[in-house]
Amino acid sequence: MLFLVGTGLAKKDISYNAIEICKNCELFADRYTANMDQEKLDFLAETIGRRISELTRSDLEEESRELVERARRSDVAILVGGDPLIATTHKILFIQARRLGVPVHVIHASSITSAIIGESGLDFYRFGPICTISRWTERYKPTSFYETIQRNMQSNSHSLVLLDYDSESATSLGVKEAMAILEAAEAKHRQGIITPKTQIFVMHNISVEGQSRELTTVSEAEKISFKDGMTAIILPARLSEVEREIIDSIYG
Amino acid sequence: MLFLVGTGLAKKDISYNAIEICKNCELFADRYTANMDQEKLDFLAETIGRRISELTRSDLEEESRELVERARRSDVAILVGGDPLIATTHKILFIQARRLGVPVHVIHASSITSAIIGESGLDFYRFGPICTISRWTERYKPTSFYETIQRNMQSNSHSLVLLDYDSESATSLGVKEAMAILEAAEAKHRQGIITPKTQIFVMHNISVEGQSRELTTVSEAEKISFKDGMTAIILPARLSEVEREIIDSIYG
Repeated sequence: MLFLVGTGLAKKDISYNAIEICKNCELFADRYTANMDQEKLDFLAETIGRRISELTRSDLEEESRELVERARRSDVAILVGGDPLIATTHKILFIQARRLGVPVHVIHASSITSAIIGESGLDFYRFGPICTISRWTERYKPTSFYETIQRNMQSNSHSLVLLDYDSESATSLGVKEAMAILEAAEAKHRQGIITPKTQIFVMHNISVEGQSRELTTVSEAEKISFKDGMTAIILPARLSEVEREIIDSIYG
Repeated sequence: MLFLVGTGLAKKDISYNAIEICKNCELFADRYTANMDQEKLDFLAETIGRRISELTRSDLEEESRELVERARRSDVAILVGGDPLIATTHKILFIQARRLGVPVHVIHASSITSAIIGESGLDFYRFGPICTISRWTERYKPTSFYETIQRNMQSNSHSLVLLDYDSESATSLGVKEAMAILEAAEAKHRQGIITPKTQIFVMHNISVEGQSRELTTVSEAEKISFKDGMTAIILPARLSEVEREIIDSIYG
């Protein structure tokens, strides 16, 4: 059996259930997901009482067949940050197992999107499709997030925008850089959805140590800087009366 | 301090973190959320090693001030099913605490929406706003879900549709009844989004015992019946090539 085990957001977010299962498995960890640092890995190895082997990106993707075949012979658990099956890497493993006829079971855990949406105070039912702002390079400057935000605004839905996360440095794209990219996308598409005064929620390290949330504007957000950790922003649609009340009590 | 403690979906989904915190708190439980039955409550009381008092709906809503004031004097944890801050009831407590200046901390846990979207195999980034089909009564036949699904289809986004959950019987609205409501809404609005051949994912008890997922059609789904548990459906937009491959390997 192959277990894809979510370890959630915070260091000790792994479930009782997952700990029980992992005690009887050969353990591997995906260090490339967010919310899976050395401190957490050490805690997990100690709590479960077993050695955890770290996987490279290629173990998880190109070589995923090998992991799956190993799970045919004995119980294998792959520990990942957050909730599994959101990252493409984990989906590849899941599908590989289904294709090769190896039983696969997912242990769910706290999820960044559910946590951020909940902690924002905005109405859960009003979020449109989620998108990500990727880091720009000299040659690659994707702006597909802009179209998602625009469609969400048109249908009066909130936009949860994840900022590109780099597992090496354990840091998201900076808020200042994200604002510059938003403004550059606006300059390119000119739909008037991003202005210096556009309201924006900046959600940082939600549910882990040093959590912060702020309701500000695009121009003010340019001054925000975090040492490290995971950041997301929310571009809200028009707030309902109830949302306005809730937001005032949280951020006021 | 007031702790809103998510206990996740499955019986043993509570996190290591949450168990540690609860050991030093006066404990209450919201029995009105999904994923919080007697068996789970018994497991939690035994694992944490403390008595858990059950709260009525009025304790949680009209009388929420009392719970919050109690949390000013000593540490209080309220155990809820799934991830907190999705249900309005938990949001009310959260906001009440913020307003009264009582520190409130949320312990996140596995979330029904993240789990269902992940287990469906569909692209996480392609889901539009979520909606719920409520039980119809003689006088109250809401069809607002239809407008949400229609808007999602227009923007080529998937629709996750929760089926009304009744905590007394621990059962969602039946799939057969849900199909009848979908078809009645179609007859009323006539936008051609629901036909007998419309593809539909039926997701039942995801991440708990007796989990099942099926890709079928509206007319075939009418034959599906579950004894109890939580059910959701997904009305997919046009599948991408990658999604088609994934879906074939999961449901094929």
